[in-house]
Amino acid sequence: MSDPSELLPSWRPGDVRTTLLTFLDRAERLPVERRLAVFDNDGTLWCERPTYVQFEFFVDALRQAARRDPTLADREEFAAVLDADLVAMGEIGLERLAMALAELFSGETPEEFAGRVRAFFGHARHGDLDVEFTATTYAPMLELLDELTRREFTIAIVTGGGTEFVRAISSSLYGIAPELVVGTLIAYDVDRDGAGEIVVRRTARIDGPGNEGIAKVLAIQSSLGRRPVLAAGNSFGDREMLEWTCSGDDPGLALLIDHDDDDREYRYASTAETSAGHESITAVGRRLGWCVVSMARDWTRAVGARRP
Amino acid sequence: MSDPSELLPSWRPGDVRTTLLTFLDRAERLPVERRLAVFDNDGTLWCERPTYVQFEFFVDALRQAARRDPTLADREEFAAVLDADLVAMGEIGLERLAMALAELFSGETPEEFAGRVRAFFGHARHGDLDVEFTATTYAPMLELLDELTRREFTIAIVTGGGTEFVRAISSSLYGIAPELVVGTLIAYDVDRDGAGEIVVRRTARIDGPGNEGIAKVLAIQSSLGRRPVLAAGNSFGDREMLEWTCSGDDPGLALLIDHDDDDREYRYASTAETSAGHESITAVGRRLGWCVVSMARDWTRAVGARRP
Repeated sequence: MSDPSELLPSWRPGDVRTTLLTFLDRAERLPVERRLAVFDNDGTLWCERPTYVQFEFFVDALRQAARRDPTLADREEFAAVLDADLVAMGEIGLERLAMALAELFSGETPEEFAGRVRAFFGHARHGDLDVEFTATTYAPMLELLDELTRREFTIAIVTGGGTEFVRAISSSLYGIAPELVVGTLIAYDVDRDGAGEIVVRRTARIDGPGNEGIAKVLAIQSSLGRRPVLAAGNSFGDREMLEWTCSGDDPGLALLIDHDDDDREYRYASTAETSAGHESITAVGRRLGWCVVSMARDWTRAVGARRP
Repeated sequence: MSDPSELLPSWRPGDVRTTLLTFLDRAERLPVERRLAVFDNDGTLWCERPTYVQFEFFVDALRQAARRDPTLADREEFAAVLDADLVAMGEIGLERLAMALAELFSGETPEEFAGRVRAFFGHARHGDLDVEFTATTYAPMLELLDELTRREFTIAIVTGGGTEFVRAISSSLYGIAPELVVGTLIAYDVDRDGAGEIVVRRTARIDGPGNEGIAKVLAIQSSLGRRPVLAAGNSFGDREMLEWTCSGDDPGLALLIDHDDDDREYRYASTAETSAGHESITAVGRRLGWCVVSMARDWTRAVGARRP
């Protein structure tokens, strides 16, 4: 079809690029309904350092709320965030902080919440990289999404982040429709208002576990109804999803993003205790035969590229 | 664009057809991401009488299982079904029967279950209408699905039936992908097998309530991430979904299928106690200004038409 040397222009020639192109060609022999690709979001499609973009959004919302109601600062979780007290935040833990911050949006309709998310992206910027957050997406990964779309793949985002947060921007940022975003979902309440009309509102409650690890496998089967043939991730939260993708009847590809590019992004690795001792996810990926993508070596550019 | 007289050929000229065509033209002014249409399945896209197709599938599976293991007939729920004892089945109730029958598939992988569903459709026939079950879809509704697809709508099935059952046939029957089927979902268990590979298996458990009534509104918001602009249904299980569709900012259309065609299908109506007394869903639909579709008057044909 097209000249392979023109495909994925931001991927440097080498084993990784060859593996990807070989997979793409093989996948065209699969029936279209089996061409499902799933992508983690934070650290896989866009930058997750120094903090998650969603956390920045929460902090921004808290600052606005505290200007209207200074007593919010009396709450331990909010005080730690407003003071940017990293020690206190570390003691409280990200999960408790996130659940407290989610209360700021309790009672909002989904449309109101999505409006706030989009407003945030209109004014907020990534401090270190000095770009809008929408420009912290990885150009090579956007090229891959485009190539998969061209080959009639269904593409889903499977994130530990908030489903509604990602849905508010997934169409404009990645061309991915809301029903193809599977994340950690804040539960909704539904009621009739004074006029008898049905109204859906956010709670501050999560139904079930956060969408990490084995939960991602269950979420994919439950929400998308089939095993993917391509999965991309960058942390231990993606491990089971990547393993499951490789153990089906169809030839599956697990793509692991290795954050080894200190010049253009950040150098870090997700680590955990495994059967082989204390390992980085990159070591696990090499051990299991995944396609490990070195951001420094395999990409000609990283962040800063917005989809045209 | 096209000559309106050529659109929806199985819909007779009249108020209903005019309302539909007017809605379709108006919807083209909406951004593509807001063009979401949701359809109930049983009694809306295909025939649900004398029993649900899924129930026929369950009975078929039970008969096969009982040939291998006759002691299954000792269980009260299974005995009632195997003897086609309508009185006993009525006393046990459809919900308890369905949950007992779901146990027949407990431990199967999603692929095994989908294979059994497809095998059933290969041999089973609708007794009264003397056609394959796949031919009990409503031709006018398939035309509507095609027209919505042509106008870049996202189309979802929102059913009280089993998600996996409908997913196994939604692509071939309706051209609807698995992720756009939202139903009553049997929970999965996930585990590693002897070789350490991740395996997903069905349980006999439902997480949360069956997908009827207000649950359909929550399921649409949670799974699809937005309010539809078109909803079609035929029973009180669809009422809230239809109401919610009409109360958004965008012009919404609620389509109610009235089963009034005793010659070509069945004459029946879903009824319930409402604020206005004991009402049929058709009476509710007229009261709320929905578009009520008379199968006898508004359709030139009903079942027996397979998608080409």
